[in-house]
Amino acid sequence: MSSLHAVIMAGGSGTRFWPASRQRRPKQFLPLARGQLLIRATLERLQGLCPVERTWIVTNPQQGKALGKLLLDFPSAQILIEPEPRDTAPCVALATAAIAARDPGATMVVMPADHVIAPVDAFQRLLRRGAELCADGRTLVTFGIAPTHPATGYGYIECGERLDQGTPTAFLARRFREKPDRATAEQFLAAGNFRWNSGIFAWTTDGIRAAMAAGNPALADGTTALLAAVQRGDRRAITRVFKALPKTSIDYGVMEKAPRIAVVDAALQWDDVGSFPALTAVGDRDAAGNVSLLTGGAQQACLDAADNIVYAEGERTVALFGVRDLVVVAVGDAVMVCPKHRADDLKQLVEHLRATGRTDLL
Amino acid sequence: MSSLHAVIMAGGSGTRFWPASRQRRPKQFLPLARGQLLIRATLERLQGLCPVERTWIVTNPQQGKALGKLLLDFPSAQILIEPEPRDTAPCVALATAAIAARDPGATMVVMPADHVIAPVDAFQRLLRRGAELCADGRTLVTFGIAPTHPATGYGYIECGERLDQGTPTAFLARRFREKPDRATAEQFLAAGNFRWNSGIFAWTTDGIRAAMAAGNPALADGTTALLAAVQRGDRRAITRVFKALPKTSIDYGVMEKAPRIAVVDAALQWDDVGSFPALTAVGDRDAAGNVSLLTGGAQQACLDAADNIVYAEGERTVALFGVRDLVVVAVGDAVMVCPKHRADDLKQLVEHLRATGRTDLL
Repeated sequence: MSSLHAVIMAGGSGTRFWPASRQRRPKQFLPLARGQLLIRATLERLQGLCPVERTWIVTNPQQGKALGKLLLDFPSAQILIEPEPRDTAPCVALATAAIAARDPGATMVVMPADHVIAPVDAFQRLLRRGAELCADGRTLVTFGIAPTHPATGYGYIECGERLDQGTPTAFLARRFREKPDRATAEQFLAAGNFRWNSGIFAWTTDGIRAAMAAGNPALADGTTALLAAVQRGDRRAITRVFKALPKTSIDYGVMEKAPRIAVVDAALQWDDVGSFPALTAVGDRDAAGNVSLLTGGAQQACLDAADNIVYAEGERTVALFGVRDLVVVAVGDAVMVCPKHRADDLKQLVEHLRATGRTDLL
Repeated sequence: MSSLHAVIMAGGSGTRFWPASRQRRPKQFLPLARGQLLIRATLERLQGLCPVERTWIVTNPQQGKALGKLLLDFPSAQILIEPEPRDTAPCVALATAAIAARDPGATMVVMPADHVIAPVDAFQRLLRRGAELCADGRTLVTFGIAPTHPATGYGYIECGERLDQGTPTAFLARRFREKPDRATAEQFLAAGNFRWNSGIFAWTTDGIRAAMAAGNPALADGTTALLAAVQRGDRRAITRVFKALPKTSIDYGVMEKAPRIAVVDAALQWDDVGSFPALTAVGDRDAAGNVSLLTGGAQQACLDAADNIVYAEGERTVALFGVRDLVVVAVGDAVMVCPKHRADDLKQLVEHLRATGRTDLL
């Protein structure tokens, strides 16, 4: 098998965790992995699978600087900077070009920087299985999470026949389904052959380039041009070509049109930690159902308070008295209070701050 | 008329404003007077009525130190320290002894440090009227606020016949009534001759000592002993005598038994700012009914939020999204969230913190 590279996509903005997350401190910089930063947990999860010189982080210029300071042990040459935000297909194109230039015919596993995943050994076993399945140079591999409830916030993959007798189990994908409505999600759950799209993929550089050529020639040509530019060390050309790439997601722009997709059945504890209520899965819970994620000396005190979510950083105490179902966030320069059921709309508050000139808080 | 002294009672603990108020920073140290500390506003309200060398602050040892640092222009000799908390009657005894030693036969006006009162000219006119009425050496004077609603959190004074033809109007008090239940408060309001007990008084040193002798001989004897100790400069004796004084309030221990009480009708904006919801009267209000008191660079941002109370100090923003009728307090080391209707029970939270060993926060 060709050598294995890991690509971590770390470009998210993270308005859903304001005021903990900011433009310069998106979700992957938050200590949501049981006190550990998500980006660091993602890197540690790859230890033993990919050496650091074959691990890549793709991010934007601001976060690239922050990552450099934060991950002093991570080689700066392995941080790829996207000249501008253009969704995940150009991100994959840039990583593919960088890896193909270094290691032609390599296998890549691609994953978001900001998910909570455990256990590590199962995760690595799955990625190895995916790497085997894509070694034919024509199969693109996804990793599907068995749904536990009719979630409307995730994309789904419909599985077809079983691919082979190997383990972990793998299926051929029948089709990708966008985030469904509730009724559809319930059908998916009942059907049994639907999986949540984890956003984790495996393919060879040749395999993804072939799928791009078949489904999105502009993206394929752009990747070829990026490869040439990387080989020449021509940063200007990289920027120019990148900015001309189709602005689309890898799911929509490539995967949904690819002829042969394998779905590896990923029996994992997996959470994309989409907004504060997701802390219920990763935080500490008290007897009254209050969930907290406290770092840097933060504490909480609850009296007659139930089912709240508290996120706090630094030497401060968050005291809740007589309230329920609230999200309360306290960081250095900001406090935010909203009901749990509005937490997924937090972007509205961020937009309100922007509209009222409070960009210092974004 | 004898010379006029002002006594500011500044011994309160202020658990109802936690975490803004602490043991070492009770309510009178909070900027509740439109951004100004209550104690400072109380002192300024006396300017032109009493010179500073005839103005006294009675407080406890911790707050005495804090006052000394805060009020650099206030003579430390005018700060009287209560050896231990023993309610307001011993507080008055100590002030009476200190004033009588300096200025025999003086007139005293006595008031809490932590009320919001305006306008200043009306306030001073009322105190001057009170000083005239008590000049006979036998009348104790109270100042009654005309009730605007059937409050159950204040004591009431029932007024009898009009005392004289002077202005502002003064009545003879018929009796004192403790905090009533709702139905009784409504009767008081309807009757028209009830006033809220403002906690502000006027009397001569001889007048109050005579009333003590009539109603509470132990207090009268203690005051005489305190006076002798002050005259000798005997701090030990002051402490010993003070600690043996009856632990009672001046209302219950003296006023309710006094033969002749005048009530001056105090047409004032008056608020004892008893707990966070009282900020409604003294804070800034936005179009959605959110009331805020922000100092030291604090800001707020509200979206879909109504009828909340925000108190914040220092360089921080309190953002409320989709919540109503909450009290949200943010200071350096603590954030507190409770519903408005629980704000009067905040002492329970403070007791909970004490019981769980969080005395660092008290």
